[in-house]
Amino acid sequence: MTKRDQGPLWAADGVVVDESIVRFCRGDDQTLDHDLLGDDLRATRAHVRGLVAAEVLAPADGGQLVEALDTLIEEYAEGRFTLGSQDEDGHSAIERVLTERLGDVGKKVHTGRSRNDQVLVASRLWLKRQLLALSAEALGAAEVCLNRAAAHEHTPMPGYTHLQRAMPSTVGFWFAGQAECLLEDSAALAQAAGWLDRSPLGTAAGYGINLPLARDEVARELGFSDLVLNGLCAQNGRGRIEAHALSAVLCLMSSVRRIAWDLSLFVTAEFGFATLPARWCTGSSIMPNKKNPDVVELMRASFAEVAGAHQALLHAQALPSAYHRDLQVTKGPMMRGVHTARQVAGLLPGLLADVQFDEARLLAAHDGAMLATDVATDQARAGKSFRDAYRAVKEKLDDLAAAGPEAFAESVRVRVSPGAPGALGLDRLKARAESQRRGLTHG
Amino acid sequence: MTKRDQGPLWAADGVVVDESIVRFCRGDDQTLDHDLLGDDLRATRAHVRGLVAAEVLAPADGGQLVEALDTLIEEYAEGRFTLGSQDEDGHSAIERVLTERLGDVGKKVHTGRSRNDQVLVASRLWLKRQLLALSAEALGAAEVCLNRAAAHEHTPMPGYTHLQRAMPSTVGFWFAGQAECLLEDSAALAQAAGWLDRSPLGTAAGYGINLPLARDEVARELGFSDLVLNGLCAQNGRGRIEAHALSAVLCLMSSVRRIAWDLSLFVTAEFGFATLPARWCTGSSIMPNKKNPDVVELMRASFAEVAGAHQALLHAQALPSAYHRDLQVTKGPMMRGVHTARQVAGLLPGLLADVQFDEARLLAAHDGAMLATDVATDQARAGKSFRDAYRAVKEKLDDLAAAGPEAFAESVRVRVSPGAPGALGLDRLKARAESQRRGLTHG
Amino acid sequence: MTKRDQGPLWAADGVVVDESIVRFCRGDDQTLDHDLLGDDLRATRAHVRGLVAAEVLAPADGGQLVEALDTLIEEYAEGRFTLGSQDEDGHSAIERVLTERLGDVGKKVHTGRSRNDQVLVASRLWLKRQLLALSAEALGAAEVCLNRAAAHEHTPMPGYTHLQRAMPSTVGFWFAGQAECLLEDSAALAQAAGWLDRSPLGTAAGYGINLPLARDEVARELGFSDLVLNGLCAQNGRGRIEAHALSAVLCLMSSVRRIAWDLSLFVTAEFGFATLPARWCTGSSIMPNKKNPDVVELMRASFAEVAGAHQALLHAQALPSAYHRDLQVTKGPMMRGVHTARQVAGLLPGLLADVQFDEARLLAAHDGAMLATDVATDQARAGKSFRDAYRAVKEKLDDLAAAGPEAFAESVRVRVSPGAPGALGLDRLKARAESQRRGLTHG
Amino acid sequence: MTKRDQGPLWAADGVVVDESIVRFCRGDDQTLDHDLLGDDLRATRAHVRGLVAAEVLAPADGGQLVEALDTLIEEYAEGRFTLGSQDEDGHSAIERVLTERLGDVGKKVHTGRSRNDQVLVASRLWLKRQLLALSAEALGAAEVCLNRAAAHEHTPMPGYTHLQRAMPSTVGFWFAGQAECLLEDSAALAQAAGWLDRSPLGTAAGYGINLPLARDEVARELGFSDLVLNGLCAQNGRGRIEAHALSAVLCLMSSVRRIAWDLSLFVTAEFGFATLPARWCTGSSIMPNKKNPDVVELMRASFAEVAGAHQALLHAQALPSAYHRDLQVTKGPMMRGVHTARQVAGLLPGLLADVQFDEARLLAAHDGAMLATDVATDQARAGKSFRDAYRAVKEKLDDLAAAGPEAFAESVRVRVSPGAPGALGLDRLKARAESQRRGLTHG
Repeated sequence: MTKRDQGPLWAADGVVVDESIVRFCRGDDQTLDHDLLGDDLRATRAHVRGLVAAEVLAPADGGQLVEALDTLIEEYAEGRFTLGSQDEDGHSAIERVLTERLGDVGKKVHTGRSRNDQVLVASRLWLKRQLLALSAEALGAAEVCLNRAAAHEHTPMPGYTHLQRAMPSTVGFWFAGQAECLLEDSAALAQAAGWLDRSPLGTAAGYGINLPLARDEVARELGFSDLVLNGLCAQNGRGRIEAHALSAVLCLMSSVRRIAWDLSLFVTAEFGFATLPARWCTGSSIMPNKKNPDVVELMRASFAEVAGAHQALLHAQALPSAYHRDLQVTKGPMMRGVHTARQVAGLLPGLLADVQFDEARLLAAHDGAMLATDVATDQARAGKSFRDAYRAVKEKLDDLAAAGPEAFAESVRVRVSPGAPGALGLDRLKARAESQRRGLTHG
Repeated sequence: MTKRDQGPLWAADGVVVDESIVRFCRGDDQTLDHDLLGDDLRATRAHVRGLVAAEVLAPADGGQLVEALDTLIEEYAEGRFTLGSQDEDGHSAIERVLTERLGDVGKKVHTGRSRNDQVLVASRLWLKRQLLALSAEALGAAEVCLNRAAAHEHTPMPGYTHLQRAMPSTVGFWFAGQAECLLEDSAALAQAAGWLDRSPLGTAAGYGINLPLARDEVARELGFSDLVLNGLCAQNGRGRIEAHALSAVLCLMSSVRRIAWDLSLFVTAEFGFATLPARWCTGSSIMPNKKNPDVVELMRASFAEVAGAHQALLHAQALPSAYHRDLQVTKGPMMRGVHTARQVAGLLPGLLADVQFDEARLLAAHDGAMLATDVATDQARAGKSFRDAYRAVKEKLDDLAAAGPEAFAESVRVRVSPGAPGALGLDRLKARAESQRRGLTHG
Repeated sequence: MTKRDQGPLWAADGVVVDESIVRFCRGDDQTLDHDLLGDDLRATRAHVRGLVAAEVLAPADGGQLVEALDTLIEEYAEGRFTLGSQDEDGHSAIERVLTERLGDVGKKVHTGRSRNDQVLVASRLWLKRQLLALSAEALGAAEVCLNRAAAHEHTPMPGYTHLQRAMPSTVGFWFAGQAECLLEDSAALAQAAGWLDRSPLGTAAGYGINLPLARDEVARELGFSDLVLNGLCAQNGRGRIEAHALSAVLCLMSSVRRIAWDLSLFVTAEFGFATLPARWCTGSSIMPNKKNPDVVELMRASFAEVAGAHQALLHAQALPSAYHRDLQVTKGPMMRGVHTARQVAGLLPGLLADVQFDEARLLAAHDGAMLATDVATDQARAGKSFRDAYRAVKEKLDDLAAAGPEAFAESVRVRVSPGAPGALGLDRLKARAESQRRGLTHG
Repeated sequence: MTKRDQGPLWAADGVVVDESIVRFCRGDDQTLDHDLLGDDLRATRAHVRGLVAAEVLAPADGGQLVEALDTLIEEYAEGRFTLGSQDEDGHSAIERVLTERLGDVGKKVHTGRSRNDQVLVASRLWLKRQLLALSAEALGAAEVCLNRAAAHEHTPMPGYTHLQRAMPSTVGFWFAGQAECLLEDSAALAQAAGWLDRSPLGTAAGYGINLPLARDEVARELGFSDLVLNGLCAQNGRGRIEAHALSAVLCLMSSVRRIAWDLSLFVTAEFGFATLPARWCTGSSIMPNKKNPDVVELMRASFAEVAGAHQALLHAQALPSAYHRDLQVTKGPMMRGVHTARQVAGLLPGLLADVQFDEARLLAAHDGAMLATDVATDQARAGKSFRDAYRAVKEKLDDLAAAGPEAFAESVRVRVSPGAPGALGLDRLKARAESQRRGLTHG
């Protein structure tokens, strides 16, 4: 049992609440809010400065609060400020500690704000930073791919469609393709960060407050580029913002899933195109002979985790306008989804750098029929209609059976439209990467 | 850095693995496996007994192992056996502790099994128990509803469609409807438990083992009604089983969501049909005037969490046959989804018992036009075609404006087809509840 | 523009509605309702008979209506009764045609029912039949697998985990595994059909009707085993019932996805384990050399379509109790999901019967290290601790390199626990299949 | 039965394929491709011009093809060019008709391209146009809201949190909030359009072609701002691009859902805040008294349809790199999701313009306790700590009971931080709308 008058901020009536209800209402907030606490503290400090600027709080009170918050920010960074079991959530914890340290001055910190806009501003700060970090990490992985593409520009690799051998290609082409996907993902993540880069702080419980809050100044201090003006819009963004942000994360996870799938096939005995250093592999508890690409498989599976988080966010929004307690459940999925992605994005560059290709096995997987399209196209270029050339070649695939390494290399060399295996366009991709990096750095 | 030769069961080569990789591979396994550990221990004990029965393990060794496992099961129940930081997972922890306590005999426990079938059997035991518990809880909530339906059989309540007043109804009808839904949910949960009630233990890594395992006897000891015979089927069930089980859980959460939505509307100032005791409500950090139905809203929102978990399970299955490490990510969503549902199901009966209805407000929400269908139907019964009667009544809705409480009560009384407001069929529903409870008890 | 007084059943006021609104409200109903029309007609006929039994409708009127409905049922079966552009939905179409043919008597058909319970009963009839058909089709596919398993009991095939070669296995084991999964799916589908086998007809708009409807008799005529008693429960089932039914369908689609994934790998040049007759393959518009397993890939992809439909159903339920127009959108996903599954289930047995295995390629994919577990287990059986045996074998994998076909066959033979490659348990699986078929037939 | 040599482009071997397989492979392509056909034709024309520029096609041949395509584009616009039952898909239909009309020259159109890049380019053109249209429609709806906000700046409306009355607000604030959300949605849609604005044409089956295609020029003619350089990236985008685009669509649908939820409550008898003109409402088939907000409810439900489509796209991507036939199933969900959203976006401005508010009912829903936050904040401003002021006010809520209309109006007036009810910031929002509109117009 929890006596409410020792408990929540809003308690005043001595109502006794069952532990099971308290536990249910709290959910994972104590864990989740710990991650948000740094942003919550920074937003609280900006709010206090804003109250002073608006002459709502005496400069002396403001000064004490800011100083105490500076200390708390430091303590948090060092792992010394954590939520206590008596704290309903992170917001309450900040007010509690300030009150413990500053007495009545601490109780002034919540003037002009609600936990509603407090969690919104902390979530946006947190999410924006994570999206930018993921965008940078995707960019870093793309750059690894571009380097490896350059080194493997002439390493032969069969090109597949339907997992069937289709046309000659190269390891360089594979890396360049993954690089370009990762650049797209990085762009989507940066777009999402820019899209939600507006401060909801100052909308209070959704309907504003009878104070002339310096909202624009507070937003600037926190690094936001604009305001969410309307409090309903701020509340109605809950879940919607997070879901669309996770959609950008899912773009990245989808690219990772395709990379992981490819590697998973490449390292089979049957393909044998690539090998992974031992540190990326594990064994079996029962089969002494096993060396398994577990890391690659878990990377592939992480799409599922983020997609589940994303789906929870979509479901949690099925509500009328304004705040409802339902929206609390948006926090967990947002943070779980991002954490999973950050782990994966952190490992990805190393994996892409470490995978080794086996040129002999790659070459052995070529067969002459893969040249059929070249022949048909040559005939078309010489004037035959393409469809007739296609049919003619189809009849005589056996003629191509004797093709050797040079023929495959030549087939790659002559495919010279921008981006094709014979003209990877690495410079263009590098320029794109650099431009996106500049965008991330300069905001 | 983790030196593998001090680490995983399969380590033998001194490969040094980055902490970040170890952490990623482990995921939440240490937390999740703790919950599964009791079932893992019981399945391990049954496996050992089976090895003795199959004359693979000497009775003396088997006896030592069983005794040590009995102790561990007890220690686990008392919270004294937990995973250590050195344990890759719960399965490894069991082998480690047995080896610490029994020396070489401990190292024999993994004879004839793989972590693959170990996690499968523990998951099925765990999931079956949870589904049966949820089924019983749904049944309990249904029974609360049936009791309240009986008490409120004559308490008037407008019946709505499209959230527009439609026809007179009763609070009893509302409770009876929720009861019947909960009975359906209970049935779906029990079906799911029965559907997965087969033991995968003894399929090893998916391809069996060169031992004559006493699979049927082991399954019986564990309370399973049959075997998953084929190891591929056992592996391919991963994710598929859990997802369909969570679908049954989602049935319950969907009913809860509708109940919560209704209550959420009933306690608005505008409807005013019901009130919740203070222990189900919370306040605001900024608005002194607020009393909010947070528990109800969080119950409503829990659908989102379970749906997210379910979705992750659907995505994690996009694989060829047999075991892949990807399947590890099925454990978290399964357990998170079930935990959320158990919390909600635990609180639901209390909430349904506590909500109080305000008969005056309910009556005030009636208006005479709600009798229009009765009038049209009466005319149809008297021989007019229903469509003409409908049109005639539609022209003269104002005639009904003066209707009072007795007219509404009479309208309810005359709706006597089975299940209608005037003939709730509580006996039939009670009989159904009892029959379902017997099914749960006797398996 | 549509003049309402020429339009919907409920129109009476000459309001002019924009075509765009009419089109939006109608959605895909004209197409979807066509599929439901047969069930709608049968339910309408049962309702009419019930009205006569309840003495609400004169036997003569009832007789006329029943006769006209018999004719319509025939016309529908022959494709001669379809929805017209003036019909808001299938329900309205039935009343319109009856009125055209029978005059005033036709206008009596809607006595005592609402389109709300009409669509519910038609949907349940339709869905139950589809689920039973899918259950039977899954069973049929399982039986194909069992036959092929018997024929291929000794055809060697490497067993994989993580797509890495793990232990010797057989094509028979692969087929037996798929068979057992399909039996599970068939059981889940049959369970779902049984779960929703209750008649909502007679609950009208959700609150019953002032008539003594013969609900139990009507339900029996329609082949239902019981009633949904309460109208709220009938309405609140909308979406919930369909979603859980599609979850059972997803079990089947998940098994299909795994089968398709396996075949997709088996027919690669790299694995080369199997070939598909030309009728299961297609070519490329540009590459004359391609023969692609498109049908297999589309089967794999059909999971996505059903999962999307399922998800739409989960989202559509986020509502308070009783009918809301939102529930109309449950019809499309339910029908799309089922149609996709029926197509796939229809093709599956043929595909499973037609795929040909290449024993030479299968054997060539074996390597001696796959015997390592056998050796370690043998040592464990001889008294060594399993973990020590495991480590010893791991050191000496090279000793196994020379193993030949007989060694692999022997490895399979000695794995004799129930269901293992050396003891497939086909009789047990066949008995299970027969028992499930009896359940479907007599169920 | 379909004889392949009369059938698909790639047919050459007289294989006879079952109709059921043909039908399954085709799926909904004939319907879906019809919508894409205009873009397919335009892309085909640009491709032909590019072939001429690259000197692959003789100018005379190119001229004939371009002229024939001009005619087809016109015929398509007029509904005179549709797919025939013999066409495997839209791409094949174009080649067929060109060949019928131009003979051998027609057979040249497929030189240097594959159906793989053909569907990719048509899909991107189609999707980009639809996203921009939706962005403009969201902007239009926002502008309606801004106008109505200005007109209702002083119309009182209670502000709710948890559906409980919280603080005084205005109808203008509600409209301004919805406007700001719609502006956010419009921005997300425009971002998505920009993100995918790159041409995949010229990547052929994924590995380029042995021709010096003028890819950049072709892309420019089609209005793309850049190329997808690498063919793997082009293929791997399939599903990923569409899913992220639908995520932006879901932002809009989520805002629509909240608007629809609010209106659905506002038009209940209990709230009574608003009424909808008859053209937005429907009746019941059984209850003569009903007037139901069906359009609003179907708008709310459309989120479910788009979310289902989105989910199908997420599932369809679970593949290795490059083209697989699975990707065909991305087309249906993409188009269904967009079509639903376009319908809703088309109706939304009219609905927002038409809803009428009832000031008397709105005012009657105010109660004095809604002023409690003002009082506490005033005390905080006067120097008391906010938490103490909060507690003091909480004790004396009854003192506020007598508050009348002027007190509520004053409470709104004094909330003057940017965006609050007393300072809606309509100018800022209008400026944002104008800036976004300029962005859409000038690309």
